[in-house]
Amino acid sequence: MNTIVLKTALALITFLICQSVAGAASVRDQMAQYPNVKTAVEELVLANHILYDQNAVDGYGHVSVRNPANPNTFFLAYSLAPSAVQIDDIVEFDMDGNALNGDTRTPYLERFIHSGIYRNRPDVNSVVHGHAPALLPFGLTGTTLKPVYHMSAFLGEGAPIFEIRRFAKPDPDTNMLVSNTALGDALAKTMGTNNFVLMRGHGYVSTADSIRKAVFRSVYAVQNAIIQSEALKMGNPQYLTTGEAIKAQQTIEKTINRPWELWSQRVREH
Amino acid sequence: MNTIVLKTALALITFLICQSVAGAASVRDQMAQYPNVKTAVEELVLANHILYDQNAVDGYGHVSVRNPANPNTFFLAYSLAPSAVQIDDIVEFDMDGNALNGDTRTPYLERFIHSGIYRNRPDVNSVVHGHAPALLPFGLTGTTLKPVYHMSAFLGEGAPIFEIRRFAKPDPDTNMLVSNTALGDALAKTMGTNNFVLMRGHGYVSTADSIRKAVFRSVYAVQNAIIQSEALKMGNPQYLTTGEAIKAQQTIEKTINRPWELWSQRVREH
Amino acid sequence: MNTIVLKTALALITFLICQSVAGAASVRDQMAQYPNVKTAVEELVLANHILYDQNAVDGYGHVSVRNPANPNTFFLAYSLAPSAVQIDDIVEFDMDGNALNGDTRTPYLERFIHSGIYRNRPDVNSVVHGHAPALLPFGLTGTTLKPVYHMSAFLGEGAPIFEIRRFAKPDPDTNMLVSNTALGDALAKTMGTNNFVLMRGHGYVSTADSIRKAVFRSVYAVQNAIIQSEALKMGNPQYLTTGEAIKAQQTIEKTINRPWELWSQRVREH
Amino acid sequence: MNTIVLKTALALITFLICQSVAGAASVRDQMAQYPNVKTAVEELVLANHILYDQNAVDGYGHVSVRNPANPNTFFLAYSLAPSAVQIDDIVEFDMDGNALNGDTRTPYLERFIHSGIYRNRPDVNSVVHGHAPALLPFGLTGTTLKPVYHMSAFLGEGAPIFEIRRFAKPDPDTNMLVSNTALGDALAKTMGTNNFVLMRGHGYVSTADSIRKAVFRSVYAVQNAIIQSEALKMGNPQYLTTGEAIKAQQTIEKTINRPWELWSQRVREH
Repeated sequence: MNTIVLKTALALITFLICQSVAGAASVRDQMAQYPNVKTAVEELVLANHILYDQNAVDGYGHVSVRNPANPNTFFLAYSLAPSAVQIDDIVEFDMDGNALNGDTRTPYLERFIHSGIYRNRPDVNSVVHGHAPALLPFGLTGTTLKPVYHMSAFLGEGAPIFEIRRFAKPDPDTNMLVSNTALGDALAKTMGTNNFVLMRGHGYVSTADSIRKAVFRSVYAVQNAIIQSEALKMGNPQYLTTGEAIKAQQTIEKTINRPWELWSQRVREH
Repeated sequence: MNTIVLKTALALITFLICQSVAGAASVRDQMAQYPNVKTAVEELVLANHILYDQNAVDGYGHVSVRNPANPNTFFLAYSLAPSAVQIDDIVEFDMDGNALNGDTRTPYLERFIHSGIYRNRPDVNSVVHGHAPALLPFGLTGTTLKPVYHMSAFLGEGAPIFEIRRFAKPDPDTNMLVSNTALGDALAKTMGTNNFVLMRGHGYVSTADSIRKAVFRSVYAVQNAIIQSEALKMGNPQYLTTGEAIKAQQTIEKTINRPWELWSQRVREH
Repeated sequence: MNTIVLKTALALITFLICQSVAGAASVRDQMAQYPNVKTAVEELVLANHILYDQNAVDGYGHVSVRNPANPNTFFLAYSLAPSAVQIDDIVEFDMDGNALNGDTRTPYLERFIHSGIYRNRPDVNSVVHGHAPALLPFGLTGTTLKPVYHMSAFLGEGAPIFEIRRFAKPDPDTNMLVSNTALGDALAKTMGTNNFVLMRGHGYVSTADSIRKAVFRSVYAVQNAIIQSEALKMGNPQYLTTGEAIKAQQTIEKTINRPWELWSQRVREH
Repeated sequence: MNTIVLKTALALITFLICQSVAGAASVRDQMAQYPNVKTAVEELVLANHILYDQNAVDGYGHVSVRNPANPNTFFLAYSLAPSAVQIDDIVEFDMDGNALNGDTRTPYLERFIHSGIYRNRPDVNSVVHGHAPALLPFGLTGTTLKPVYHMSAFLGEGAPIFEIRRFAKPDPDTNMLVSNTALGDALAKTMGTNNFVLMRGHGYVSTADSIRKAVFRSVYAVQNAIIQSEALKMGNPQYLTTGEAIKAQQTIEKTINRPWELWSQRVREH
């Protein structure tokens, strides 16, 4: 029995166990039963508020977390402005972007960004999507977003740009939204093994193995865009080398609780 | 009897009926009598506050709504800073920009922007005018404001620019204000079937079939200007294609209650 | 007896009468005696707070008003950050920049900006000085600040730039401050009949016949700088023509109470 | 006995006396014993909050002060976001970046910036480090940050740029952090006798003989960057001459209590 078959079998078993345990349980029930689900959902609400306060999302944009008690589902608010999201607004979705537990509230049209990435990237546990203005010009002009400092070292060799026209069928003209499973898959494939992708004429997606890191990356991708954009007008910027980016990311991403505490404090005080 | 004559006759009948019903009634009386007038005026006050909070207007600028009980009048504050406007500051105007119900408070000098558009565009129920700095450079340099993302897809093929010198008579030098019926008509004609027009050396006008949508378009036109301006410095931006703009606008403008709730919440908390 | 002699004689008589009436009276005494002094000093305090709130000054910068009861003196805070200024911080100065009424608190080093302009420009009743970042690039590069819209039509044909090196003697190298009567006169002469002047490597001065108008002009000069700077990157901006500027200024400056009420409300709520 | 030997002997004696007096005393104990330590630590806490409020640091960045009771130690918070720092978060470090008094809380990885500068620059009593976005493009493109106005005259002939690759051994690829004594020394040497240094792909360091002045310089270096960056797009900026910079710095840095009072007031009100 080779590795792929083994992994698939294990995933199936995990899925079945999880289904039997948590399947039809509401988000609130799962929070009561699993401490890590409780933590995840509470951090997800906080992440919504932080992303708005830090200008990584506005009235649009969304953030999700993979269910720690079931890798085949994820938590995401129903269609609300991020700053308004509370615990009872969180819905559980499956890997096809279907709402579970009979939830019939209007979902985000682009929940397929999340399901597409969770399905294709088992290492990813949190996904952020937003339209921060500083990031848009890069996608519009085909300019690669590259790390200008240690804080955004996760950008590595530079962020790929998702051109929806290449994947939309049969008509390349779309409403620009990642509104089905095929486009979610296409986005995940453009992203590849990166943790950041720009969407031409739309926005960005940021991913990580934790909510806190996905939020951190979203905030500092915007900062990177502001700095790089200005540096490009001033001259020929020296980006982090590949070696610098790898080392800086390893060091910096161990410290992300420091800004997380600050950002949490800010939104709690509001 | 041809269509134009029929339409004119119907408009006249509607006008006479409305006059007899609502003619001399104060704004407060109409609010008491017609629930949709009450809603419209309350949303209009909120829209004033939101436009200021979202930097689409400053101490100047104004927003109006067509009277839902009488298509031949509209509601607009008297000459106040938008953030200060309350229900009792709202005045009813006719299609020539005259205040009704004997209201003698100083009106905005540019109420003719509103009357001109309502007269020429029966599909428009709300008009916003402001001077947001990010939009000015486009009119000043003759650069077409075009949609850079789905949020501002309503910009379509690009916003026309109103050059007041072409219409001012006999002297092309004016005080830059749309301060009479002729200039209001000229502005409406420059706008054509668009829902956004830039005014050289002055500002912008945004229109829609509802207050919420006119506010939405004003806020995202400013965002579009910020993004497009930066993208033009970075390279050659890829705008939404005509097909993308049409589809994106249809989808996005169904979701405008999401930011409206957020923006309302912000100004209510102040 | 020619006009100049007559005017001088009248000024002397006015001065002597005012001295006998208000000469040794403290600011508080004059406020108690003259309602227009009370209004002027109260507006001056408010103007300090508004200029800070509207980003026309920061921890530095100052605003003064000519004494309505004595054209040969003016009111200005002692050396404090504008946002901290209260009524009892206001000092009366003579036309040579000397503090009156025995006030020994540290004065602003650049009170000679104010005395120089009041001495040379009898039409000016209020002077603002600040370092707003958006305005600096114009003085640094010799770019003329010109009116891009009706709100800043007072900029007319464009603001002159004060180059302190041309006037400092014997050494052209100074501390950049207008720190004596000779430099105050030189600044006033560079300003000429304009109401706005840029100071290379330093900031700006704005003047008017009233506090409210001087504040208005400071705020909208900054807005003009932001817009013009961006427009210059985008293309070849069309400024207001001379005729447009004259007409727009006449119209707009009648409406300045509208933003003044808004700005006052903002700083009162803080 | 030559001067260097004499100075070294005196430093040693001072060190031994200080050690015997304050050596093992906690920060709180030293505050109780020495009024100038109490003032220094209290100002340090305030400086942390001000730097955040004035956008000179964000969730990262730090500020230190040399111990007034012992020139061979300095005070710096443990690894916290600056806006969160309180008195009991302050740790005492020696000239090798080791925490004293048995403090085992996680220190900032870059405390060697501080120890390196204190060791090499006996005139420096306070050090600020941050990542303000407006400053980054200068280091990235090798553009010299030069004084555009009197407020930032301390920039003198222009700020040097620290290129960590020139000093990292054996591998020039680092995590970009000044994370040991050798790099701290290298940074101090690049800084030389300046009071400001840019770090390529990282941020800036600002120094002074007092906390207030180091904070002042950080805030106005950011302002200078914003203005210079914009001026470079507009044309060929005229910087302060050497003579102007020397004179302006002497004058302006006597007035820094004015903005300090304002900034303190702002953070106390939050």
